[in-house]
Amino acid sequence: MATHKLLLLPGDGIGPEVMGEVKRLIDWLNSAGIAKFETDTGLVGGSAYDAHKVSISEGDMAKAKDADAIIFGAVGGPKWDAVPYEVRPEAGLLRLRKDLGLFANLRPAVCYPALAEASSLKREAVEGLDIMIVRELTGGVYFGEPKTITDLGNGQKRAIDTQVYDTYEIERIGRVAFELAKKRKNKVTSMEKRNVMKSGVLWNEVMTQVHKREYPDVTLEHQLADSGGMMLVKWPKQFDVIVTDNLFGDMLSDIAAMLTGSLGMLPSASLGEVDVKSKKRKALYEPVHGSAPDIAGQGLANPIAMISSFGMALRYSFDMGALADKVDAAIAAVLASGLRTADIKSEGTTAASTTQMGEAILKEL
Amino acid sequence: MATHKLLLLPGDGIGPEVMGEVKRLIDWLNSAGIAKFETDTGLVGGSAYDAHKVSISEGDMAKAKDADAIIFGAVGGPKWDAVPYEVRPEAGLLRLRKDLGLFANLRPAVCYPALAEASSLKREAVEGLDIMIVRELTGGVYFGEPKTITDLGNGQKRAIDTQVYDTYEIERIGRVAFELAKKRKNKVTSMEKRNVMKSGVLWNEVMTQVHKREYPDVTLEHQLADSGGMMLVKWPKQFDVIVTDNLFGDMLSDIAAMLTGSLGMLPSASLGEVDVKSKKRKALYEPVHGSAPDIAGQGLANPIAMISSFGMALRYSFDMGALADKVDAAIAAVLASGLRTADIKSEGTTAASTTQMGEAILKEL
Ligand SMILES: CC(C)[C@H](C(=O)O)[C@@H](O)C(=O)O
Ligand SMILES: CC(C)[C@H](C(=O)O)[C@@H](O)C(=O)O
Repeated sequence: MATHKLLLLPGDGIGPEVMGEVKRLIDWLNSAGIAKFETDTGLVGGSAYDAHKVSISEGDMAKAKDADAIIFGAVGGPKWDAVPYEVRPEAGLLRLRKDLGLFANLRPAVCYPALAEASSLKREAVEGLDIMIVRELTGGVYFGEPKTITDLGNGQKRAIDTQVYDTYEIERIGRVAFELAKKRKNKVTSMEKRNVMKSGVLWNEVMTQVHKREYPDVTLEHQLADSGGMMLVKWPKQFDVIVTDNLFGDMLSDIAAMLTGSLGMLPSASLGEVDVKSKKRKALYEPVHGSAPDIAGQGLANPIAMISSFGMALRYSFDMGALADKVDAAIAAVLASGLRTADIKSEGTTAASTTQMGEAILKEL
Repeated sequence: MATHKLLLLPGDGIGPEVMGEVKRLIDWLNSAGIAKFETDTGLVGGSAYDAHKVSISEGDMAKAKDADAIIFGAVGGPKWDAVPYEVRPEAGLLRLRKDLGLFANLRPAVCYPALAEASSLKREAVEGLDIMIVRELTGGVYFGEPKTITDLGNGQKRAIDTQVYDTYEIERIGRVAFELAKKRKNKVTSMEKRNVMKSGVLWNEVMTQVHKREYPDVTLEHQLADSGGMMLVKWPKQFDVIVTDNLFGDMLSDIAAMLTGSLGMLPSASLGEVDVKSKKRKALYEPVHGSAPDIAGQGLANPIAMISSFGMALRYSFDMGALADKVDAAIAAVLASGLRTADIKSEGTTAASTTQMGEAILKEL
């Protein structure tokens, strides 16, 4: 059995708590002889700043580059609101994405039937929802230069951010979307603002070409990002795979997540290109939710998004799709049994702490 | 009685139809001696392209600069998908906004009780909703330079858009938001992505200063635009006034509009700075909905957003708040009577065409 190297980066707030439940799962997989994971741990975000005055240390970056997959908790919190921009907690995550070339962010928005009621949307609008948002993650306004604030004198400053996209960046994220669609409902919706942004014009043009040239059998639709956002709220089930840029993806995937009513349940995967020689790809898995500093350390956090992110690692990094299916099934079974952490509790369900939820899922496995 | 000069720009698709109902209202106000409007009409968008190969002619731009207010329908449609970028229908609208300095876009998102059922959200989440989105409209990535597509050779192109914000641009839109909040629930939520964008850092800083210096009695909250979008979907009633940049405002105001379930009902106002001498400000009023080419010319369009936009003109350009209130009340009364255009019809209501709806509102007045 191959040994897989994991780097665990719990981060801040509820990060360490939810990561604890993944650690429990990994330990069990190892001891039961189902898989062989070697784990190391590092600091990222505010916790790295507290220890080393950086958002991630060079040592931990080296470990990240060396790992087969990174399991990431969450970063940030009011404690670090005043730290310099360059070392703010988020910078650690952004550097991991950029330096490891994790250009493809996969964010499934799935509505667990047991939780449909938790959505602010009507049940019929979200029950059975299963869409995949594919967000470009290493380009656009997140990393384009110049990115500056200049003092113009007279109390005036000028802030500049730059959105940059090259053809190849749009092509490769397009391919990820089309490949995923082939295994799903065979439909891709590309979203941009071509009526206002030149990057939207190029995005639209390149998606159309990739489709025509390489994936003519998949359905491709184009939608302006603003009306796409509206359609997402109006009738999300019309979508299968949505592909969009870094900033629109940030907004749209969060909105899609909220539609499901299950923010504490949703995982994500950030993938790099497949290396021609080793056939491996760099990858980072993280929950969609944030560090929730207000409930940190109280055993209130929902570990499902984190465990489910580890499930995505099994699927996308280690070709253990069957095991990933079992993890998903265990989560669904525990939910069906009525166990709920505080964020998703409702009448007639049984309250569970972070640990109790993690243990129940493991037991189900 | 002062004479007010209006320029009507119906535009494309359903624009002319819904504008017809505003024209009917204006004619009545004139003939009943309630107000004195002088109206002129121009071409914008695809209709201007068909006539003059531009998205708005210099003659119509001159008329626009001369008018006390512009009443704008909608632009665009598949017919003009292939026209050159510089003369695409949207360019006419963008030029009007920029050249007239219409920096403040006011987009109320109000849920009419009679229509709460039309929302994809649960009734309790949207009934009674009344928020105001204040969107910066002449800056940011919409107009920043460079905005280019460059051929890099080898089949590669590079697209660039530039987000630029100066202190004064953020200050003046901030003031608009705080002033509005004072007449409402006294709360402003500012949204940006300061954790990723330098323009977000400056936006946050300037809003904080304007608040401290000029509006300490209004409550100011800051939210990241992505989580702000989530909060909007989760529980929109937590907001009063939201102030945000051009691109985030485009996304967030459309999403807010869709929450109400009444997209065909929502107006908007785009305002310039008040001239020190004349005490006047340039202004353009337009519905939030688009040109809906699929239903154009069939008498199916809902004229309420357009009429309500004219109502905003009465309020913000002509200091006729009492008359604007009457227009709003007439719309509410007609809805309560059960009259519905196709977009908002439901069981037990009475179908109305564009004209029938316009006439009913006028009769109510
Ligand atoms: C933490 C932050 C930098 C990040 C982003 O904006 O990408 C987050 O919102 C996300 O969506 O992963
Ligand atoms: C038509 C288009 C250019 C415009 C925009 O993006 O601003 C529209 O979506 C709007 O919100 O008014």
